[in-house]
Amino acid sequence: MVDPANTVGLPVNPTPLLKDELDIVIPTIRNLDFLEMWRPFLQPYHLIIVQDGDPTKKIHVPEGYDYELYNRNDINRILGPKASCISFKDSACRCFGYMVSKKKYIFTIDDDCFVAKDPSGKAVNALEQHIKNLLCPSTPLFFNTLYDPYREGADFVRGYPFSLREGVTTAVSHGLWLNIPDYDAPTQLVKPKERNTRYVDAVMTIPKGTLFPMCGMNLAFDRDLIGPAMYFGLMGDGQPIGRYDDMWAGWCIKVICDHLGLGVKTGLPYIYHSKASNPFVNLKKEYKGIFWQEEIIPFFQNAKLSKEATTVQQCYIELSKMVKEKLSSLDPYFDKLADAMVTWIEAWDELNPTAAAAANGKA
Amino acid sequence: MVDPANTVGLPVNPTPLLKDELDIVIPTIRNLDFLEMWRPFLQPYHLIIVQDGDPTKKIHVPEGYDYELYNRNDINRILGPKASCISFKDSACRCFGYMVSKKKYIFTIDDDCFVAKDPSGKAVNALEQHIKNLLCPSTPLFFNTLYDPYREGADFVRGYPFSLREGVTTAVSHGLWLNIPDYDAPTQLVKPKERNTRYVDAVMTIPKGTLFPMCGMNLAFDRDLIGPAMYFGLMGDGQPIGRYDDMWAGWCIKVICDHLGLGVKTGLPYIYHSKASNPFVNLKKEYKGIFWQEEIIPFFQNAKLSKEATTVQQCYIELSKMVKEKLSSLDPYFDKLADAMVTWIEAWDELNPTAAAAANGKA
Repeated sequence: MVDPANTVGLPVNPTPLLKDELDIVIPTIRNLDFLEMWRPFLQPYHLIIVQDGDPTKKIHVPEGYDYELYNRNDINRILGPKASCISFKDSACRCFGYMVSKKKYIFTIDDDCFVAKDPSGKAVNALEQHIKNLLCPSTPLFFNTLYDPYREGADFVRGYPFSLREGVTTAVSHGLWLNIPDYDAPTQLVKPKERNTRYVDAVMTIPKGTLFPMCGMNLAFDRDLIGPAMYFGLMGDGQPIGRYDDMWAGWCIKVICDHLGLGVKTGLPYIYHSKASNPFVNLKKEYKGIFWQEEIIPFFQNAKLSKEATTVQQCYIELSKMVKEKLSSLDPYFDKLADAMVTWIEAWDELNPTAAAAANGKA
Repeated sequence: MVDPANTVGLPVNPTPLLKDELDIVIPTIRNLDFLEMWRPFLQPYHLIIVQDGDPTKKIHVPEGYDYELYNRNDINRILGPKASCISFKDSACRCFGYMVSKKKYIFTIDDDCFVAKDPSGKAVNALEQHIKNLLCPSTPLFFNTLYDPYREGADFVRGYPFSLREGVTTAVSHGLWLNIPDYDAPTQLVKPKERNTRYVDAVMTIPKGTLFPMCGMNLAFDRDLIGPAMYFGLMGDGQPIGRYDDMWAGWCIKVICDHLGLGVKTGLPYIYHSKASNPFVNLKKEYKGIFWQEEIIPFFQNAKLSKEATTVQQCYIELSKMVKEKLSSLDPYFDKLADAMVTWIEAWDELNPTAAAAANGKA
């Protein structure tokens, strides 16, 4: 039985992995026609759509998908004054979806991302690969030259310490993009025609102590393990910066994963990124970030969390204090961001009372 | 004009890269017929052959190759009492070749390594890829998710700090293996039939602060930048351990590259590794290393060189002192190894007086 709208031409997987334990979070301002192409892979899952911009606009979701949709009015109603921590007119608003989800896993994808093909021409089931990445361990403490040692046909190479071969639990899976690469505005301007055509058949752990630029376009994570740190910051409307939402989250989650002994993977799966955003608009959004990051990155590279911080929430509150203390001199924006980080945790705990009680040792 | 012995069927490259600045070092106990297959790529270069085992045995080198060959008698004659630092009956003896070379770059390869094919079926010019790796910078300070940013069709992704985009000078290029993977004896025993068939089309920098298992089978480096640290230790005849020669060198060079701000890359090029060594013999050689490495690796992970150590020689002497101080309690072997590290540097400086004078500030 082939679904008539199944543009990839593959049968719907009869037993999708983690069907009842995973939500797909999509931020959008337009119709979600891109979901047609994803139907064979994503239709069995529940969607959380975070509508950005004008709340009166009607978002069309392709038929057959099970979803809940939140616009700005919903966010304001649910969070009250704490809604101030959720960005507006920026895809950073997606993190509201992480907060209202009741599932263990999140997959988030942009609405201009399509199904990629591997070198053999086969459609890539991105979500299935993310789930595989999340369900098998990471190896942040020592580098394995043959990449993911748990993959079929691979293993730990000679010289890899045996005591480290169990690895650590994976919290984040960062996927990549064919076609339009995720470049900053200056690089877009300099190389407007560059397309990523290289399919690198590898998944790897980002080593402990190493930061990376996390892109929110094609990302999955274990909400129970790292969710409260997946805050996409204050971007867009009324803020001096944009397009650093996922970067901010990436720096925070990496420092916290390193501290808590959790793993972060990058590599497969690829999605096909269809449309380059306007580099001139991007430059306007990014330009403060471009010089701020020169101080922010050393800040995160040197951030040391205390032994007392044993839950994500505790780590995140510590980090917010360090941001206030060390980055506010860069710009008053960071003072506001540090406050928003605290508000975010308060809102998270309010919407997730059981997890919050456990995290605060009251369970 | 096609060479009749050119088994790959490609014309010899008319202008081989770095022809007069690179030596190929090969340790061997047998005839070097494997060089027939490499002729289109390696024949233009000078070979340094280090003959292991019985010095009276005649090693056959395919015609047309320009080479110098050293057997144990030569090593003893050239180094005198300092020859004690060069291993016997172990491929660790190859590092003698690094020491007698007068070139800037070294490529070392095992005599059971053949030309690999990329997924399109094209023969891989491993040396050309190593040279590309060495001549373009590394990025150890921040992770680039699209792998080598200097490669055609790739760049630094959004969020990569601009101040770090010049990268650092590359000192080491570590290549990989198709067919027989470089597994330890226990893994060989458990997975006797596993073959590596995955061609991962990527070169990446091993981040600063992260150790890796460096394999000596397919390795290139800048002798001027890191040569004196490429000591393959005391292995084989008369020693309690084998098959940790390249691992030892890998731990040392990584700590020193990190300290001196140099880069180490891994990934492409692949060679085709033809023959698995005997896992029972390997187990005998490795078994002490397997438990020693559980202490050695934390030792290297925590090794901090002083600001005063600004040359490779100085770093290496500091490291030898730390080995003596911290690892001798593990086994008296490490006391001997620490002494051999010093002897190695003395011998290196004797054979490389100009570089030694520069390194010691006497130039």
